[in-house]
Amino acid sequence: MNLLPFLEPIRAHMERVEQRLLRASDVEFPLLRAAVQNLLRAGGKRIRPAVAILASQFYEADADKVISAAAAIEMLHTATLVHDDMIDRASTRRGYPTLNSQWSGEATVLTGDYMFAVSASLAAETDSVPVVQIFSRALMTICNGELRQLLADRQWPPTREAYEKRIYSKTASLFAASAEVGAVLSAAPTDKVALIRSYGHNLGMAFQIVDDVLDYVGDPSELGKPVGSDLSQGIVTLPALRYLEQAQGPDAEDLVKRAVQGENAAVQDAVARIIASGAVDGALEEAAEYVRKSHAALDRLPACQSRDILAQLADYVVARRT
Amino acid sequence: MNLLPFLEPIRAHMERVEQRLLRASDVEFPLLRAAVQNLLRAGGKRIRPAVAILASQFYEADADKVISAAAAIEMLHTATLVHDDMIDRASTRRGYPTLNSQWSGEATVLTGDYMFAVSASLAAETDSVPVVQIFSRALMTICNGELRQLLADRQWPPTREAYEKRIYSKTASLFAASAEVGAVLSAAPTDKVALIRSYGHNLGMAFQIVDDVLDYVGDPSELGKPVGSDLSQGIVTLPALRYLEQAQGPDAEDLVKRAVQGENAAVQDAVARIIASGAVDGALEEAAEYVRKSHAALDRLPACQSRDILAQLADYVVARRT
Repeated sequence: MNLLPFLEPIRAHMERVEQRLLRASDVEFPLLRAAVQNLLRAGGKRIRPAVAILASQFYEADADKVISAAAAIEMLHTATLVHDDMIDRASTRRGYPTLNSQWSGEATVLTGDYMFAVSASLAAETDSVPVVQIFSRALMTICNGELRQLLADRQWPPTREAYEKRIYSKTASLFAASAEVGAVLSAAPTDKVALIRSYGHNLGMAFQIVDDVLDYVGDPSELGKPVGSDLSQGIVTLPALRYLEQAQGPDAEDLVKRAVQGENAAVQDAVARIIASGAVDGALEEAAEYVRKSHAALDRLPACQSRDILAQLADYVVARRT
Repeated sequence: MNLLPFLEPIRAHMERVEQRLLRASDVEFPLLRAAVQNLLRAGGKRIRPAVAILASQFYEADADKVISAAAAIEMLHTATLVHDDMIDRASTRRGYPTLNSQWSGEATVLTGDYMFAVSASLAAETDSVPVVQIFSRALMTICNGELRQLLADRQWPPTREAYEKRIYSKTASLFAASAEVGAVLSAAPTDKVALIRSYGHNLGMAFQIVDDVLDYVGDPSELGKPVGSDLSQGIVTLPALRYLEQAQGPDAEDLVKRAVQGENAAVQDAVARIIASGAVDGALEEAAEYVRKSHAALDRLPACQSRDILAQLADYVVARRT
């Protein structure tokens, strides 16, 4: 499997997570099995399971249970992507056709549901009720956030508070949960569990800000989506927020408003002006600040190889370009 | 709350389940809270939570945990209905507008997802990993069955094997799980847990057959759907299956085939002929046979008030007309 280079020391664990994921999706019904396994194989960078594994290694932990938890997290994450792609009517994800572009919406919903169930089953294999609780709360937060975005979150002007809430719900909550399940499956004392969770939380906030930045300055062919796709879908992320905060006069606000209302020329114009304003660099600086907070949490944990790798992971998250 | 009369002895428990359900759905986001609470209030007969409670009472059990499990089951059941209604594009359920008739498909998917998460959280409150496992497996079975029905299960001629598999996935699996979680939360020995689960399984099979029969002979105003709606949606249930098994000649097969292909006049004609053939009475006799099996399981359990109530519940399931 393709691993980020600094994750090589945990390659054996990561390969066991892959096997666990494939085994958990080895279901009777051939179309469902193929769909789930293709989704998993299309794969992402597996950052969440890596966080869970590394988070468990500060203190003694049962490796088998950690593998189950890491697989449960990736399954939950993939399930949410399946439903998200349907909601966004996306036709590709990670360069592969989405399930909803090939199947009916109905089948897509049910496949996502099935994956939630598999995820819960994997979480239960940890034999840890707290792990199941952390999972179910993370899923509640994710769904609540998506619903808020869908039904109530398009008010104008957009606010920083709503943005931060949204990226926590969408991304940081599951990063925090990934770190926390690793920690609670180890002999970590309560205060250290909180630090490990804080690492994951801040990492997740940085990760999503960088995602949002890449929507402005990333390579469309590598990301598989056009520049400015958030704005054109009516979503104001940190670069646009910072531009609105800094820009003087009603023209800037009017431009962004027309862009989020779907006016195509306004999207291109807004993207160019937002980049030119320095708002993208400012957003990256905010991501770096979250990374600094994640480092600060690590610094209060015992020195070990896992700590070093988590630190590299945090640096990678702001340096990445895909 | 409205209770089936023979459930009066467990009224206090059932009211605690209601409170638990409302509390679990008391979420921050007002539109989501209102949607979930309306869905729960529209309510069904709460047969599944009643089974869980009664199943726990043969042996010593922690009542609080049983209440959480019973609430988790009803929440899971309601979540599957939310996604089902969307898939069937139903506009009413239990006489109330469905969520998908008022909201977008997207919001409906997410609300169902949220309810799955709440259900998992309630299941985890039992502090029992086996309970979470039973839940997640039941959800996997339900989703797998729905997907099979959607993608692969329309082959002709319809088979009894496929029908039995379908009603197990759709209904009996969750009835079996309801009984089993009650039992595993009590001090029931393993062989008694299996008997209690068997009660639930057979009850669920009977329940679904009666549902399928009512689609032919029920009162459309009470059921909130027209006679023959299964056939017109292409679904061949036990009455039509028995008719095909018994009827001589290609005419019968042709008629049912045209009905499931959506020919409206053929649906009305097929319903009339199926009823006239005695296939509906035969189907009810099969439901009664499942009820006899559920009684047989009860007979091997300790005599107690709960056993008597479960026996009455089994008799009710075949006698009901809504």
